[in-house]
Amino acid sequence: MDSDPIAQLVERLQAFCLQRRLTVAAAESCTGGLVAKLITDVAGSSGYFRAGLVTYSDGSKTRLLGVPEEELAAHGAVSAQVARSMAVGALNRAGADAAVAVTGVAGPGGGSPAKPVGLTYVAVADAAGVDVRRFVWSGDRSANRSASARAAIELLLERVSAAIQSAGDQ
Amino acid sequence: MDSDPIAQLVERLQAFCLQRRLTVAAAESCTGGLVAKLITDVAGSSGYFRAGLVTYSDGSKTRLLGVPEEELAAHGAVSAQVARSMAVGALNRAGADAAVAVTGVAGPGGGSPAKPVGLTYVAVADAAGVDVRRFVWSGDRSANRSASARAAIELLLERVSAAIQSAGDQ
Repeated sequence: MDSDPIAQLVERLQAFCLQRRLTVAAAESCTGGLVAKLITDVAGSSGYFRAGLVTYSDGSKTRLLGVPEEELAAHGAVSAQVARSMAVGALNRAGADAAVAVTGVAGPGGGSPAKPVGLTYVAVADAAGVDVRRFVWSGDRSANRSASARAAIELLLERVSAAIQSAGDQ
Repeated sequence: MDSDPIAQLVERLQAFCLQRRLTVAAAESCTGGLVAKLITDVAGSSGYFRAGLVTYSDGSKTRLLGVPEEELAAHGAVSAQVARSMAVGALNRAGADAAVAVTGVAGPGGGSPAKPVGLTYVAVADAAGVDVRRFVWSGDRSANRSASARAAIELLLERVSAAIQSAGDQ
């Protein structure tokens, strides 16, 4: 077991998904591939990780994930609405059982009073629906990206665990 | 300037592309998002990096990049042919000026006599065509992934530089 806390989370996610034959996907904006990189750092991740979509521009969110242009125009790329659409887009386009999406202002630029550096939305989607959470990190670009990636992996693990729990209760 | 050699390469790529208003995309298999992560580590990368597609399964190479199923069946995911198709798929689907693709056997599993651990193909595509190079790394999973990511960024920088040079010669 790795001593790095994020690596430990990823190893738990992998063991859980492999055991239950669940597949996952990720859609990333501010983390820029870090979530996919952390997941695929672990040998054997090809058994459950289907795909990652690093949609770093508004246009790529629309082209690759199907995020509506009107939604980007109305709410901005860093919004709960766009996080939800990214997660649903990744779920459908990758054909996975669960998907996580991250969009935020990593910094140092790009912040505003309404959307400060560190503001991040993480959404998780599966067949049952979509959840979104909002965070405001206070680190530099690198720390904010790491915190966002960790939150994404935590929420993905929480969601797949809950889905199984719920299915077992039926 | 960062003292890390890969970070230095990324900073050169960014400065070059921003100055000439070129956009790039990446398609990754064995590197699993590391190329996108390294590019987006640098603030300001949103000015030229359009998208990354981490296609970790055969199905996602077909769904997200348009790699023909027959090509995957005939040559395998780790092949010059699939590297080329991944690069062309990323170029077209992300709508970028240049795209790089990486596919390889990172290890520790997945190797065979014909395709040993460390075998990696990197392809770069732009409007002028596609180039592919073959590498065989001798490190562990982490070292092989880093070497592949570095080769991808070097070839992308080389290609965009050459394209500009060639355009200037006309």
